[in-house]
Amino acid sequence: MLEALKQQVLEANLLLPKYQMVTFTWGNVSGIDREKGLVVIKPSGIPYDELKVEDLVVVNQEGEIVDGDMRPSSDTATHLALYKAFPTIGGVVHTHSPWATSWAQAGRSIPALGTTHADYYYGEIPCTRTLIKDEITRAYELETGNVIIETFETGGIDPVAMPGVLVSGHAPFCWGKDAMQAVHNAVVLEEVAKMALHTYQLNPGIDPIDQFLLDKHYLRKHGANAYYGQKDSKVNQ
Amino acid sequence: MLEALKQQVLEANLLLPKYQMVTFTWGNVSGIDREKGLVVIKPSGIPYDELKVEDLVVVNQEGEIVDGDMRPSSDTATHLALYKAFPTIGGVVHTHSPWATSWAQAGRSIPALGTTHADYYYGEIPCTRTLIKDEITRAYELETGNVIIETFETGGIDPVAMPGVLVSGHAPFCWGKDAMQAVHNAVVLEEVAKMALHTYQLNPGIDPIDQFLLDKHYLRKHGANAYYGQKDSKVNQ
Amino acid sequence: MLEALKQQVLEANLLLPKYQMVTFTWGNVSGIDREKGLVVIKPSGIPYDELKVEDLVVVNQEGEIVDGDMRPSSDTATHLALYKAFPTIGGVVHTHSPWATSWAQAGRSIPALGTTHADYYYGEIPCTRTLIKDEITRAYELETGNVIIETFETGGIDPVAMPGVLVSGHAPFCWGKDAMQAVHNAVVLEEVAKMALHTYQLNPGIDPIDQFLLDKHYLRKHGANAYYGQKDSKVNQ
Amino acid sequence: MLEALKQQVLEANLLLPKYQMVTFTWGNVSGIDREKGLVVIKPSGIPYDELKVEDLVVVNQEGEIVDGDMRPSSDTATHLALYKAFPTIGGVVHTHSPWATSWAQAGRSIPALGTTHADYYYGEIPCTRTLIKDEITRAYELETGNVIIETFETGGIDPVAMPGVLVSGHAPFCWGKDAMQAVHNAVVLEEVAKMALHTYQLNPGIDPIDQFLLDKHYLRKHGANAYYGQKDSKVNQ
Repeated sequence: MLEALKQQVLEANLLLPKYQMVTFTWGNVSGIDREKGLVVIKPSGIPYDELKVEDLVVVNQEGEIVDGDMRPSSDTATHLALYKAFPTIGGVVHTHSPWATSWAQAGRSIPALGTTHADYYYGEIPCTRTLIKDEITRAYELETGNVIIETFETGGIDPVAMPGVLVSGHAPFCWGKDAMQAVHNAVVLEEVAKMALHTYQLNPGIDPIDQFLLDKHYLRKHGANAYYGQKDSKVNQ
Repeated sequence: MLEALKQQVLEANLLLPKYQMVTFTWGNVSGIDREKGLVVIKPSGIPYDELKVEDLVVVNQEGEIVDGDMRPSSDTATHLALYKAFPTIGGVVHTHSPWATSWAQAGRSIPALGTTHADYYYGEIPCTRTLIKDEITRAYELETGNVIIETFETGGIDPVAMPGVLVSGHAPFCWGKDAMQAVHNAVVLEEVAKMALHTYQLNPGIDPIDQFLLDKHYLRKHGANAYYGQKDSKVNQ
Repeated sequence: MLEALKQQVLEANLLLPKYQMVTFTWGNVSGIDREKGLVVIKPSGIPYDELKVEDLVVVNQEGEIVDGDMRPSSDTATHLALYKAFPTIGGVVHTHSPWATSWAQAGRSIPALGTTHADYYYGEIPCTRTLIKDEITRAYELETGNVIIETFETGGIDPVAMPGVLVSGHAPFCWGKDAMQAVHNAVVLEEVAKMALHTYQLNPGIDPIDQFLLDKHYLRKHGANAYYGQKDSKVNQ
Repeated sequence: MLEALKQQVLEANLLLPKYQMVTFTWGNVSGIDREKGLVVIKPSGIPYDELKVEDLVVVNQEGEIVDGDMRPSSDTATHLALYKAFPTIGGVVHTHSPWATSWAQAGRSIPALGTTHADYYYGEIPCTRTLIKDEITRAYELETGNVIIETFETGGIDPVAMPGVLVSGHAPFCWGKDAMQAVHNAVVLEEVAKMALHTYQLNPGIDPIDQFLLDKHYLRKHGANAYYGQKDSKVNQ
């Protein structure tokens, strides 16, 4: 079942080692079929170079396995919470990519310091609060999703224009219209995180870029008046 | 038309992934035929591993497409402004290479801290001022070219001896006698930017190298008395 | 003799260049057969791309060669001391991997700053005291093992839950249930060391993660109630 | 002529790109035949992937070409000065490897902060003074050699136990018993330079390792009582 979606989720997972986003099995990508309400996700702990399409697991919105012989990613409950709260997203990815993870460990949001950032993330990439003991012991992965959702709700942040987050003390989650775009956004986040650290080392007092430059670059690539890329291009987000 | 130039511009574009200068499609190279007044440039948003010679776009000095089926790079107006203002250059490249971009985001020029820098860039590599709102909303890519030109004019900087610039809050542009040399200079800039950051981390108060050392290294490789490389070598700039 | 163990120790050694953990011959992996009391270890100074299974050296607990034509690693006495003091470990690895070595040279333990760390190392990864002159001149490699053991004993640290250490002024040693897992843990240490440095650069005053988050992640992957990975998976530690 | 030496110098030059020590043509290796008093060196400005054994240039001690059709490296006079002053060395290499060059640009010597350093460099790796104007304009490459020699003479440093140097504002030179070992030492220097920067970032006040640890590691690999590596091994320096 869901063969086309499985194929895309497989390819999206395999982009993680291709872009050097993962060590060992530290990452997972999922995609959702909104009509059927089913999510395809990487099995837990399987190395990427052994991953086959038939290893992917299909779960319903309650996290119950409806297809597949393996355990789904241990982070499945986080993915499901994001799909439920952000109804327009079609793919989710979690990695421990080192530069983004360093910001998450530092508990710092990443301000928009340049146009690379602005091309994909419309403003500061938020870092969540830390989870409290009760959340962690009760339903850790679900509460990880909940603290992301809380961060976006309390900050009035649009998950379409801000397709990623840093979970404090942990690592990033990113998303997109589908699994491939989610991974694309994760690669961008990693690059942006690396450059932001070096930018602050060169100029600790630097301000974020002006709102009008942020607008220009984000809207050059996104929305009705975008003019980056080809008219019918898949790469033109 | 312009098949030889297209071939060179294609090869120059493909050097960007070879030298790990780009993530995704974050870069573009162009070359100019000065006699015909035509510029060959990468199409917008096309991945490098799919780029073919027939995808390249030929535009005239007004940016109108005269050959090719695709949209040219969204940065075309910047390239054209540089060709117009700097009549001796033959190729232009724009990347978001991470070390140079970190300096651009920090809004800092890169002083000449060593001979690697001096071999290619005759003095401090300048960072432009930030663009104002009016410039960005009116004609962003053209004004990006204009602020580069302004930086060189007000600073009395020779674009032949200083074949690159950092656009504040954005990223570098480099150029050269042709597209290949432009990319060559972009790779040098990235290496120089990386080393300059680490140099300041080791010695925050270090001064630029002496003018006579700068002269020695730059003139060892450039100009009538250059003695680096072979007499008729293409690599001897 | 010990062909299966030799094969595994060979493969574990070859993971070091695969994961870019070594320059030249700066590393060595061993594995132990607890029943026979014999250790298989890399020969000293042999490049990894020339290493063959018949080059591996078998030594007894006193370090005497019982099989093999080559000299064992010069660090053999350290490996043997660790096997003797930590009876549940089956593999040991020593590298000069650059990020972990930088922490060792700085004489600093690595606090648990995030869940990547917590997934494998249950608390702060300790750095030993420096060795005194007498220890170094008398029996350097043995005393290197002894100062590791002292660090764990005086700190009340469980070597199963803390499968690695930094030797002050030197470099890391890691271990695991077998040679493959020892190398796995060394790769994790390197990644954790890199991210910890960058985390402190972003937030010098950051505290280690809460004990309950450390518990959650470590126990998600280890022990009776682990639920990461597949039920019978080798990758599920 | 000198075919065996040419072959070795070729192989040593090709190690530079293999170990990612060079960008473009920024490096050169030479080897000397002490009996004949002739030096084989890389031609100037030739890319490594085009370099063939017949491209190598043979010069005498005065720098005159005695075999070969190409210009020798522009740094030939520096190599010759080192061979003349340090009679036991057989190979010299110059690179702009980025971490070592960052220390050179910072004008800082690299203290022995760990055993990786001590395994190859017996003490602090010195950085020269800057050259004065007269030296640079008169005979730059020769004076580069002279300031290295001055650094070793005034510091009472043995070039056998200290097979490398940082030229202030420029980059490193390394050497060894032959061209291969010179490159080996250059790779070590780069790794040591990288780790030393990160070590100081983690602990700005860290002292160099104790003299007895320096002695132990250096003498474990070098000299009559060395016990690292195999008895007859080429890798056992």
